Amino acid sequence: MASVKVPASVPEPYEDAEQLKKAFKGWGTNEDLIIQILAHRNATQRKLIRDSYSAAYSEDLLKDLDAELTSDFQRVVLLWTLSPAERDAYLANEATKRLTASNWVIMEIACTRSSDELFKARQAYHAKYKRSLEEDVAYHTTGDFRKLLVPLITAYRYEGEEVNMTLARKEANILHEKISDKAYNDEELIRIISTRSKAQLSATFNYYNDHHGHEIIKDLETDSDDEYLKVLGAAIECLKTPEKYFEKVLRLGIKKLGTDEWDLTRVVTTRAEVDMERIKEEYHRRNSVTLDRAIAGDTSGDFKRMLLALIGHGDA
Amino acid sequence: MASVKVPASVPEPYEDAEQLKKAFKGWGTNEDLIIQILAHRNATQRKLIRDSYSAAYSEDLLKDLDAELTSDFQRVVLLWTLSPAERDAYLANEATKRLTASNWVIMEIACTRSSDELFKARQAYHAKYKRSLEEDVAYHTTGDFRKLLVPLITAYRYEGEEVNMTLARKEANILHEKISDKAYNDEELIRIISTRSKAQLSATFNYYNDHHGHEIIKDLETDSDDEYLKVLGAAIECLKTPEKYFEKVLRLGIKKLGTDEWDLTRVVTTRAEVDMERIKEEYHRRNSVTLDRAIAGDTSGDFKRMLLALIGHGDA
Repeated sequence: MASVKVPASVPEPYEDAEQLKKAFKGWGTNEDLIIQILAHRNATQRKLIRDSYSAAYSEDLLKDLDAELTSDFQRVVLLWTLSPAERDAYLANEATKRLTASNWVIMEIACTRSSDELFKARQAYHAKYKRSLEEDVAYHTTGDFRKLLVPLITAYRYEGEEVNMTLARKEANILHEKISDKAYNDEELIRIISTRSKAQLSATFNYYNDHHGHEIIKDLETDSDDEYLKVLGAAIECLKTPEKYFEKVLRLGIKKLGTDEWDLTRVVTTRAEVDMERIKEEYHRRNSVTLDRAIAGDTSGDFKRMLLALIGHGDA
Repeated sequence: MASVKVPASVPEPYEDAEQLKKAFKGWGTNEDLIIQILAHRNATQRKLIRDSYSAAYSEDLLKDLDAELTSDFQRVVLLWTLSPAERDAYLANEATKRLTASNWVIMEIACTRSSDELFKARQAYHAKYKRSLEEDVAYHTTGDFRKLLVPLITAYRYEGEEVNMTLARKEANILHEKISDKAYNDEELIRIISTRSKAQLSATFNYYNDHHGHEIIKDLETDSDDEYLKVLGAAIECLKTPEKYFEKVLRLGIKKLGTDEWDLTRVVTTRAEVDMERIKEEYHRRNSVTLDRAIAGDTSGDFKRMLLALIGHGDA
């Protein structure tokens, strides 16, 4: 379901590193060459290129990219070149900083990654920031957001397919009761959402839908001015059908007056090796236009070329 | 600081497996042989013995030990033979079950393990129980205990030695303010205790001691009938000076009318390969009698011999 296209025959990492070094040299940077290489290598290959680059030139590829590129193109290339765990750690850290604070990004990372991916992000966070991810999230959030986000970001959910139907029934009823009472920050509600496996939650949400007349997400949309309620609803969407959540982020990001480049960049770089094909299907279904065309119409230059390459437009 | 004594020359795992199989044969079990082997092998060696045993006899060593042994001796041998992560998962699961429920054991596992040990216990919990550790802890606890134990058990604390003194000062003052107000379940207090690194907390507790007149633990001992307050105080002791916490568990376990075999067994099996030598020093210092003598005086038979072997009494 990944959208990234890796050529059938990939050059050796030292060759890619050499080409990248060349792309930085002389008058102006060769952005096309950078895209041609980096946008068509998977995470393991990019790691080997970084290692080769550092061995050959005693320099950090990321620092050179940072120095050579600018603006949205710089951000998309840098984020993409990081390993998935480093990238999640970076995005989560940014989301705890005052000027770039985002409860949404924290929720998104917590709820759409696999348990091991989330744990690896926590390890990468230690290595990079000398603190724990939950430490920064807990410190920089307050009130209901803290109550919700700390358990979400520290979860290590069971990933088996086993489902306990009795429990699903019981917990669907708890969720319905709390939502009917508008007790959206209730600790039982948060316990269920933040600890149960995705398979178990899916059974719980299905029971809710079948026996309480509406999808749980619809029941949460009543007070839609409330930011906490929006994040809670989005968390449920992320746990249930992440492709729908990401489709919506892309749709709103593209429709926005001026386009939200950060949202576009984050979704494309974090999903290109995971489930971008499903997100593209969902996007097409929902908007009657392909994501490729929507992005092409709304962005430009190297930034556009990089995004399109990552979502699998054209050949490797 | 481990107390277990491994002989200079250790037999091959298949030889140990063969000897154990022999110990089970004929009239009665050879408990001495079981102690002689298992109590003098480290975790890696025990794992290899289990693998060899299973390869040679198509049987699970743990199941055979379970069938051959009884009572306290059975429990100490079984717990010891498990890997540290499996043992923690087992103890934590037991602590969430109605008849063996213990907020103390959950707190102890959460606060005295390294971040990686705690994470490995969470992985072992998935494998064995098909649920997550935090899922069961959150489901089986309520009120203040849940508020405290869920963040403790899901923590993945940073383990570097870096300390932020400004933060230590600030958070020592927060802790003092909350404790003065008897707001022991306050979310800021729980955030600090459950997310900060042990090095950072140590600086915070030192500042508290230096500027607020008492050790933080002393300030928590005022309402000592309150079970939650006791567990909170013990959590702080575990994070600060685990050897003192374990000394106290052993002391009370031994002094108790009838001895608390479960506490003795848990502390000895979980610490014998970690910091038992420090706990023994602390025990001697505090009780003017060695832990060896105290245990020898209070237990008997194979159970006694196994405990003494694990705490390093006699030769390997």
